[in-house]
Amino acid sequence: MSPTITAFRNSPDRGRGLARDMRVRWALEEVGQPYEVRLVSFDEMKDAAHRAVHPFGQIPTYEDGDLALFESGAIVLHIAERHAGLLPDDAGARARAISWMFAALSTLEPPILDLTIARLVEHDKPWAEARLPLVEDRIRGRLGELADRLGDGEWLDGAFSAGDLMMISVLFRLSPSGLLDDYPSLAAYVARGEARPAYKRAFDAQLAVFKAASGG
Amino acid sequence: MSPTITAFRNSPDRGRGLARDMRVRWALEEVGQPYEVRLVSFDEMKDAAHRAVHPFGQIPTYEDGDLALFESGAIVLHIAERHAGLLPDDAGARARAISWMFAALSTLEPPILDLTIARLVEHDKPWAEARLPLVEDRIRGRLGELADRLGDGEWLDGAFSAGDLMMISVLFRLSPSGLLDDYPSLAAYVARGEARPAYKRAFDAQLAVFKAASGG
Repeated sequence: MSPTITAFRNSPDRGRGLARDMRVRWALEEVGQPYEVRLVSFDEMKDAAHRAVHPFGQIPTYEDGDLALFESGAIVLHIAERHAGLLPDDAGARARAISWMFAALSTLEPPILDLTIARLVEHDKPWAEARLPLVEDRIRGRLGELADRLGDGEWLDGAFSAGDLMMISVLFRLSPSGLLDDYPSLAAYVARGEARPAYKRAFDAQLAVFKAASGG
Repeated sequence: MSPTITAFRNSPDRGRGLARDMRVRWALEEVGQPYEVRLVSFDEMKDAAHRAVHPFGQIPTYEDGDLALFESGAIVLHIAERHAGLLPDDAGARARAISWMFAALSTLEPPILDLTIARLVEHDKPWAEARLPLVEDRIRGRLGELADRLGDGEWLDGAFSAGDLMMISVLFRLSPSGLLDDYPSLAAYVARGEARPAYKRAFDAQLAVFKAASGG
């Protein structure tokens, strides 16, 4: 039996690969684990049946036999622990890769989400235009620190890991903003992730969902 | 050799236990692992020496021999994986506890941090007062969903785990706001965490740092 993940039936990103199912699809492709996808509408996400798996009514979820998980970070870690290819064998390097997973989700993604809120949720508020530079500056601060650490490295800490997968997935969410353009080494880092065959397979799979939903 | 963590020399929370070293201290106390603390000032946090361990110039960090980790989530998970007491033995229950760790950090903490930013960083902006209800409503949405899942349970999923430790640590950051008062089951959940002997030892240890720094 293959695990089943959930994804948006009609993704608000219109197939650009910005939704959080993308990072789970990518991890499954990296390790060569086939998977099923159950599409859920916005209404279905808030149903009791979906909330039994995801208490916060979101995607993605991961179901494998009796096991039901939520949170993309936990799902990617679960996949990485059970298959070779996403975490180093050395215990110390493994713990450091997990540090980067948490850094992506706890340190980079919150200010990036704040930009999404500023642009999509609060865009019609009287403060929208004046506040945007503050939000962007908080992101730039983190991007500068990340670029300093990455230096001219290919990945964040040795070989490609779940830490890179998560960091690149989070940084990719900045693509509509153009903010990455000021950090060429980070833009190149994201491009290296996008060039991986597993990423391309994951991207094509989520794009196919959008095209089917839009009749395209 | 005991591991060494870092904490604020002068915590901005004035010893209220809101800083992120608290969750690492708590985890170490739960598993009975002695530890050393290296205090860092705000200037020292931004030094190259500290950034070699924490690329984003924050606390806490965790150093044990050759291993250096950052991100409180990664550190607590590392501790929980190496000692009994914070993760269930059953593989599925263990993965679910880790889901709750990520939920605390990726789903609850971002809107809670947004409130901290609204109150401490943007408090003098012309939009501060008008925007606050939106920020608080986003937190209330998550608290309502969390209360629905917790129900009348003692902990989130069976026995106390690293998932509860992280969730309670994140919810505790709401204490200055009073927002938890509208969710009595969550307030009681946080109080159950605070009543644990390991929590009390961790709290007293961080309070002692503040008292020493303030000459009290």
